[in-house]
Amino acid sequence: MNPQSKIRNPQTEMGHFADRLAAAVHAKGTPLCAGLDPRWGSLPGSIRQRHAGNIAIAYEEFCFRVLDIVAPLVPVVKPQSAFFEAAGPAGMTALQRVLRKAKQLGLVTILDAKRGDIASTAAAYAEAAFSEFDADALTINPYLGRDSVEPFLQFARKDGRGLFVLVRTSNPGSGQLQNLDCGGKALYVRVAEEVRNWASENKGECGFGDVGAVIGATQPAELASLRKLLPEVWFLVPGFGAQGGTAADVAAAFRPGGLGAVVNSSRGITFPFAPDDQNWEAAIDAAARKTIQSLTPARV
Amino acid sequence: MNPQSKIRNPQTEMGHFADRLAAAVHAKGTPLCAGLDPRWGSLPGSIRQRHAGNIAIAYEEFCFRVLDIVAPLVPVVKPQSAFFEAAGPAGMTALQRVLRKAKQLGLVTILDAKRGDIASTAAAYAEAAFSEFDADALTINPYLGRDSVEPFLQFARKDGRGLFVLVRTSNPGSGQLQNLDCGGKALYVRVAEEVRNWASENKGECGFGDVGAVIGATQPAELASLRKLLPEVWFLVPGFGAQGGTAADVAAAFRPGGLGAVVNSSRGITFPFAPDDQNWEAAIDAAARKTIQSLTPARV
Repeated sequence: MNPQSKIRNPQTEMGHFADRLAAAVHAKGTPLCAGLDPRWGSLPGSIRQRHAGNIAIAYEEFCFRVLDIVAPLVPVVKPQSAFFEAAGPAGMTALQRVLRKAKQLGLVTILDAKRGDIASTAAAYAEAAFSEFDADALTINPYLGRDSVEPFLQFARKDGRGLFVLVRTSNPGSGQLQNLDCGGKALYVRVAEEVRNWASENKGECGFGDVGAVIGATQPAELASLRKLLPEVWFLVPGFGAQGGTAADVAAAFRPGGLGAVVNSSRGITFPFAPDDQNWEAAIDAAARKTIQSLTPARV
Repeated sequence: MNPQSKIRNPQTEMGHFADRLAAAVHAKGTPLCAGLDPRWGSLPGSIRQRHAGNIAIAYEEFCFRVLDIVAPLVPVVKPQSAFFEAAGPAGMTALQRVLRKAKQLGLVTILDAKRGDIASTAAAYAEAAFSEFDADALTINPYLGRDSVEPFLQFARKDGRGLFVLVRTSNPGSGQLQNLDCGGKALYVRVAEEVRNWASENKGECGFGDVGAVIGATQPAELASLRKLLPEVWFLVPGFGAQGGTAADVAAAFRPGGLGAVVNSSRGITFPFAPDDQNWEAAIDAAARKTIQSLTPARV
């Protein structure tokens, strides 16, 4: 059975987000997501010299070249909005172009912006992410509660987009709130149960819903328990590589058969070189291939 | 004693954020914050006709005119990032110009963007808000924990900026997570205790810290208990007016003497007219004055 043949959703031209993600992961044979976190100080010296004083254009050129290198290898890319925003309005133009080029290259795009607000404001963020920036999926923050997520859901479901809700993040202090015991369950478990409900409302043919969960690779025990709790939820797993998560740590994120998680690596793939390294493109290609190889044993 | 005379902070040219806010509130004699949430469908018909197809320029013109009207009346304005983002990169240029003009008019600016992320990503959001967009303060989301707030704090403290941490939001479903009982205390109280700690690290001469709390006007009981718990914390109180909060509801947000809270109204001030109303500028002026009047009994 070729999973790509299953992608039909009469509701939308693009198909159901979960099915598109599953097809992309199958097609590339890896769950690796390349994170695009451009930092001026880490860019190749040649690009910095060519665009001195124009950070946004430098970010765009760098990300374009990264996309050309990784597009044959990985199914998903995740631009981090913060770094583009720090380059001002021109940075947002670069972000828009990077997302567009990624889509043209057949990549699934997750805009990592961790937005969260209420009512018409949440709808405006969704419009920004899905219409203006045309991302396939967006990360969102659940602290404001269910009615802050619903406007995102409504917008996403118009044409087959996806959401990833922060559940258990990869930073050392994430447990400060997320692990608080709320009536016998940790806060992140309460959030996870909401994600399960949202995901169950709109499942694709692959069996997964269009609402996923962000769960850090640095939390292997939580990955395992959440995999059991959320069998029909895609996981977006940051923290692999530079932040310390290993292939063994992320193994529990996958369902039998190997679907169910995309594992993000940003610096490990996009900045595996010193700024004066002439062969930085070859270094990115090699780092992506090595990361894919290192993830293979995780998917049993 | 004239509180304005107390504004000296040798660390920064701009002065301590809490002192600047206190001075602005004293100078205008009101704690009203005008929220700038531009919506295409609500703009005056004349502006929509003049800029048909160019939402960002229409938003900029409208907000500029609102700023000219409210600058003599209110101390603080709060642009909502989402609506500008929904207009794409050009919208971000408009946001930048609106923040710049507000500052030129002597207004304190709070960028309502509810950002939240970790490590260098949080620092990039802070750089965007405080350097690129030059806001005086930024709203942030605490779900990722203490180490997600610290990069914002470090950046803000370089030159006297402020933060407002989401504690208890104004939406109907805010209690779903924020009211969860975490070991005998609601989650929002746990967050509030962290805000108290951050605020105590860097207090201005007015006695308030540079980290404030967002607490909805729709939660009067919580406002009262949080005022007691956080005597040295500025409150940013959304939900007044259109969302249902009354002057009686927000009274508990103030300390004796009338400082300690800025109360935001967005639609009530900026859209008190029908789109075909020729006298929309007079309507905004009248609405701002009426809102200021309605808030007066709240400050005892």
